[in-house]
Amino acid sequence: MRALHWDGSTLRVVDHRPPVPGAKMVVVRVHLAGICNTDLEITNGYMAFRGVLGHEFVGTVEEGPGGFRGKRVVGEINFACGSCPVCLGGWRRHCPTRRVMGILGADGAFAENVAVPTRNLHLVPDSIADEAAVFAEPLAAAFEILEQVHVQPGTDCVVLGDGKLGLLVSQVLFQAGARVLTVGKHDDKLAILRARGIDAVRVTDWDGAPADLVVEATGTAAGVATAVAATRPRGTVVLKSTVAGASQLHLAPLVVNEIRVVGSRCGDFVPALRALETGSVTVRPLISACLPLRDGVEALQRAAQPGVVKVLLDPRR
Amino acid sequence: MRALHWDGSTLRVVDHRPPVPGAKMVVVRVHLAGICNTDLEITNGYMAFRGVLGHEFVGTVEEGPGGFRGKRVVGEINFACGSCPVCLGGWRRHCPTRRVMGILGADGAFAENVAVPTRNLHLVPDSIADEAAVFAEPLAAAFEILEQVHVQPGTDCVVLGDGKLGLLVSQVLFQAGARVLTVGKHDDKLAILRARGIDAVRVTDWDGAPADLVVEATGTAAGVATAVAATRPRGTVVLKSTVAGASQLHLAPLVVNEIRVVGSRCGDFVPALRALETGSVTVRPLISACLPLRDGVEALQRAAQPGVVKVLLDPRR
Repeated sequence: MRALHWDGSTLRVVDHRPPVPGAKMVVVRVHLAGICNTDLEITNGYMAFRGVLGHEFVGTVEEGPGGFRGKRVVGEINFACGSCPVCLGGWRRHCPTRRVMGILGADGAFAENVAVPTRNLHLVPDSIADEAAVFAEPLAAAFEILEQVHVQPGTDCVVLGDGKLGLLVSQVLFQAGARVLTVGKHDDKLAILRARGIDAVRVTDWDGAPADLVVEATGTAAGVATAVAATRPRGTVVLKSTVAGASQLHLAPLVVNEIRVVGSRCGDFVPALRALETGSVTVRPLISACLPLRDGVEALQRAAQPGVVKVLLDPRR
Repeated sequence: MRALHWDGSTLRVVDHRPPVPGAKMVVVRVHLAGICNTDLEITNGYMAFRGVLGHEFVGTVEEGPGGFRGKRVVGEINFACGSCPVCLGGWRRHCPTRRVMGILGADGAFAENVAVPTRNLHLVPDSIADEAAVFAEPLAAAFEILEQVHVQPGTDCVVLGDGKLGLLVSQVLFQAGARVLTVGKHDDKLAILRARGIDAVRVTDWDGAPADLVVEATGTAAGVATAVAATRPRGTVVLKSTVAGASQLHLAPLVVNEIRVVGSRCGDFVPALRALETGSVTVRPLISACLPLRDGVEALQRAAQPGVVKVLLDPRR
């Protein structure tokens, strides 16, 4: 089958062996897959991953046990053992021996087919088109903030960054009732939020007034320091992007202002699918391009360009 | 009056003008004052403070309004305006225009007399000797952790550091019912905890097994990275010391393991005085030396030596 493969130094569309599902796994025929910044970071060395990239997908179950065959699904990306104390304690996403689709020890979804544990699947309601369902994974990651921090109606939030994740996080906080101000660099991206009634300003127009909750979604080391400076005493900073490399972080302000810094990664798919179904979050305007899988190398280059939001890959074209 | 004064380059015992209490303030005659690492950091440039050092004290109210005159007191160190939105919201310790005794804009307690807002005073019960009461401020800072993090009976805690704050934090977590392991360098200090039934090991004997809550009380940049590495996924790191200077902190592990980092500074005196009264925390074994105020320069040098715990100053000798 066709797949976009990273061998540690070169990214290539290759003819790859089709996935052989292990026990309690299915094979999904991929309809669409989304490019995430983590994919770009992997090609910069993050996680030292080798294999087929991609962890955001929607597709149809082709092979495997159970009632999922023929059904349209999305899938969680952490493949947990299910039997260690961490898993039994309810933290499967943090299983210490987990594989992670397209990131750690498991081939990903930039391919015609991908193997996924049955346990990780979620059925996609008919009312959610493929172009929306493919956002389930990053949208779940945005909802993860609500699992970690008590965001109340009226909580004063600043989201730093108008990239893929910033635009999703802003909408998730907004639909939770928070007061949201998104700070970005691109008027066309900020306009997506403004059209939803969310305040959004260019960083040059931002007054920097401290907020209860500041989400760092710029993916830069400088963004972390800005986030800390824009958080009120006893407030919370959420780190929503893995910044590769060590960052210079001055810790005294954290202590003096008693600020919490919360790392945030993957989330539960249930609220994400619900938001896509009700339309409380909009994702279609985030699609900058959709390319055939055979143009995968070009697609990743495109996704890295400033101003581009989400680039999708279609293995069926 | 005699006072220990830092002019930005030299630490000296000087003849200083006696404090003139402002409105709603009293003058306290100091019985004993404690040396904190923050005092040492100030003489390394922290906060750019100039004036009389010292913020841990017990004394008797000599001058001022109200029913405190003649009473033995301890006092909170943040002098808040009391009328801004932060103060009215209940966060007086974070008042943006606050002065802080011996740290920011207000002379401190390494002196015969110190001025303190009446609002900041707490009466000291007769059953608490001066040698214990002088620990109220750092003990309140240790209790602050319980205000910020939900420490439950059975919560797995590691305290990094067997200095002044580490020994207090370990006891506070222990009396809250947590499982506590303190990691230090000095057998004589660790023995203080072992005598209370608290597990305490030398860092060379520590297995580094991840805990729910790790408190960084070594005051070193390396300690922060060690703390993050010793925290289980979704666990919490508490930063209990202001590390002067920027620290290299690798942020990806925070995000991948979804760790919370919580800065922690000052706390409420009520639980601290209660613990001193009931004896749930012991402080006497922490006293390494008590010197007359006139030997204040030597006392600060002594306090900076490895193996030394708390050094007290007595202005009455």
